Amino acid sequence: MGEFDLIAKYFTRPVKRAALGVGDDCALLAPAPGMQLAVSSDMLIEGRHFLSTVDPARLGHKALAVNLSDLAACGAKPLAFTLALSMPSVDEAWLAGFSRGLLGLADEHGCELVGGDTTRGPLNICITVFGEVPAGAALLRSGARTGDDIWVSGTLGDARLALEAFRGTLSLPATMFKFARLRMEQPTPRVALGLALRGIATAAIDVSDGLIGDLTHILLASRVGARLDADAAMDMIAARRMPANAESGLALETLRACALAGGDDYELAFTARATARDAVEQAAHASHTAVTRIGTIESALGVRVVDAHGTVLPQRFTGFDHFG
Amino acid sequence: MGEFDLIAKYFTRPVKRAALGVGDDCALLAPAPGMQLAVSSDMLIEGRHFLSTVDPARLGHKALAVNLSDLAACGAKPLAFTLALSMPSVDEAWLAGFSRGLLGLADEHGCELVGGDTTRGPLNICITVFGEVPAGAALLRSGARTGDDIWVSGTLGDARLALEAFRGTLSLPATMFKFARLRMEQPTPRVALGLALRGIATAAIDVSDGLIGDLTHILLASRVGARLDADAAMDMIAARRMPANAESGLALETLRACALAGGDDYELAFTARATARDAVEQAAHASHTAVTRIGTIESALGVRVVDAHGTVLPQRFTGFDHFG
Repeated sequence: MGEFDLIAKYFTRPVKRAALGVGDDCALLAPAPGMQLAVSSDMLIEGRHFLSTVDPARLGHKALAVNLSDLAACGAKPLAFTLALSMPSVDEAWLAGFSRGLLGLADEHGCELVGGDTTRGPLNICITVFGEVPAGAALLRSGARTGDDIWVSGTLGDARLALEAFRGTLSLPATMFKFARLRMEQPTPRVALGLALRGIATAAIDVSDGLIGDLTHILLASRVGARLDADAAMDMIAARRMPANAESGLALETLRACALAGGDDYELAFTARATARDAVEQAAHASHTAVTRIGTIESALGVRVVDAHGTVLPQRFTGFDHFG
Repeated sequence: MGEFDLIAKYFTRPVKRAALGVGDDCALLAPAPGMQLAVSSDMLIEGRHFLSTVDPARLGHKALAVNLSDLAACGAKPLAFTLALSMPSVDEAWLAGFSRGLLGLADEHGCELVGGDTTRGPLNICITVFGEVPAGAALLRSGARTGDDIWVSGTLGDARLALEAFRGTLSLPATMFKFARLRMEQPTPRVALGLALRGIATAAIDVSDGLIGDLTHILLASRVGARLDADAAMDMIAARRMPANAESGLALETLRACALAGGDDYELAFTARATARDAVEQAAHASHTAVTRIGTIESALGVRVVDAHGTVLPQRFTGFDHFG
C-alpha cells in the first residue's frame, strides 16, 4: 500500500465546516467573522510519550486529546486538525485502530482532519489543531492575581501511577492498574469546561508535565506565587478511591509526588477570583466536569506546598522537562 | 539546557501580525476579514528528506521552504508557522544554525514562528504553515481543462542529480555538484509567483515528488490527461547549462528521469488557458521567476511524454512514494 492509498483509506473524509480538506497542497479554513484562530502543535514519540505496547486506538485518541487539551486551556472551540505521521512500515491493522481512535474523538468534538503528511521513519505523530475563540476571549496564562483561587479539573496522578507500575517501581492491585492505565492511555480533554470558563477563569493551562510545573508557567506569566494544599491534590487521585487502595500500600510521598508532579493528566489548572466560586461551580456543572479548589494565588513568588496542618512541605516537586 | 530555555533562546521572538505567539497553550491568529486560512503540514526525517551531513542552517531553510512551497501552490500569502522538533540531544551549535536558517527564510516572507513543541527523540522536523488567501481565490488542483498549457517554474532535476551524486550512482564535475547540491539543500519556494498567478492559473501544485507524479495529482483531480515535452523538461536542468556539463557524460535517460521524476524541486507546476500566455509571462516577470511551457492538457487520461520529434517515449516515469 502506497502513501496516497493509505491516506485515502484511513485519513480522508468529506469536510463539513472547512472550505477544503485532505487532497490539495493546502487545506482551507474559513474562520467566522470576529473569531481568532487558536493553534497548537504536539509531537508524540514512542517510548517518551507512549509505550510501544499501547493499543493503537487508544494512541489515536491520545494523540488528538493532548492537542484538544491545549485548545481547552485557551477556551477555544475545536475546528480542525492536521496529522503528520511517520511510521517504520505500513501496518494496516495498526492504521485501522489508530485512525478509529483518532477520528472517533475528532467526531465527538466536531474537529475535522483537513490535511497532513505521511512518511516512513521512526514512529512519530505530530498533530496541529485549530480552534476558534472570540477576539479577546481566550484564556491566557498571564491573568492570575493575588487572592485568586487555584482550581484543577477532574483527577490527578493516576496516569503517573500507571506509568510507574509499567516501569516496575511500584505495584498496583489489578483493578487500580486497569483504571489508572486508562487514564494514562486515553485522557479526556476538558474542552467543554474550557469553553464554560471563558469570562470566569483569570488564567488557565493544561496539566501535561505535572501540576506544579505547569502551574509555574501561570505564576511566571502572571508574576505571582501560589500556596497549594498537598492533601487536596492527593485526594484527586481517583484510583485511591477504589476499594483495592486499602491493599495497595502506596507511600504518602509517592501519592503526593504523583498528584503534584505526575504528568500526563491533561486536566485544566486555572485561577479565578474568590468571588467567582459559584460561577466556577456552575461552569463545572454545565460541562459535566468535576473541579477541585486546591490553593490560592499569593504575591510572594514561588510555590509553597502545605499539608493539612498548614505546614510547608520541604519536598521539591518539579515538572517533566523533555530535555531535563 | 532544558526544553523551556531552549525554546526561549532559539525559537521565541516577539510577534508582529499574530495576536499571540510562543509561550501559551495556543498561539492566536487573527485572519483579516474575507480571508481564508491555507494550512499545510510537512514532516522531514533524517535519511529520507535530508542527509545527516547537511549544514543545519540549510536544513532550517529547507524545512520551512517545503511548507512555503505548499502555500505558493495555493496562491496563499505566508502568515505564520508552528515548529515541532524532536532531537536526540540538545546540540547548541546545531540549534543556532538551524534556527538561523529557519528564521532567516521566515523573515524574508514575513512568516512568524508562533508556537510548537520540542522533545527528545530521533531527529524529526514537523512544520505546519498558515497563509491567507481571499475566499474563492486559492489555486486548486482541480481546475485544469483540455487545451490548457502546462507550465513549470524555475529549474527541474538538479536536486535529484545531487542526490544521485551523494549516493554514488553518478559523478558530477565539482562546479555542477556544488550548484546542484545547493538546489537540493536550499530550495526556493515560489511564493511570489503563486500570488501573481491568482486568477491566471487554472490549477497548480508544487513539485516535491517529481514532475510527472505531482502533475498526475492535477490530472486526477481535474479528470484530464497531459502531453509533456521531454526535451523542454530536460532543458530545465540548470546544472546542464554550466560549462562543466560538457565533461559530465550524463546519459540522456538519466537527465530525462531527473527532470521528469527527480523530486525535491519545489517548483510550481501549473496550468493556464492558451489565451493567458502573456498574463503568465507578466506574472513570471513581476515575481522575478522564470517559467517554461512544457506541455498541454488533453482529454485522454494519462501522461504522454514525447521527444522533440513528437514520438511518445515508452519509458514510465513515476513519482516518489514514501511507502512505495
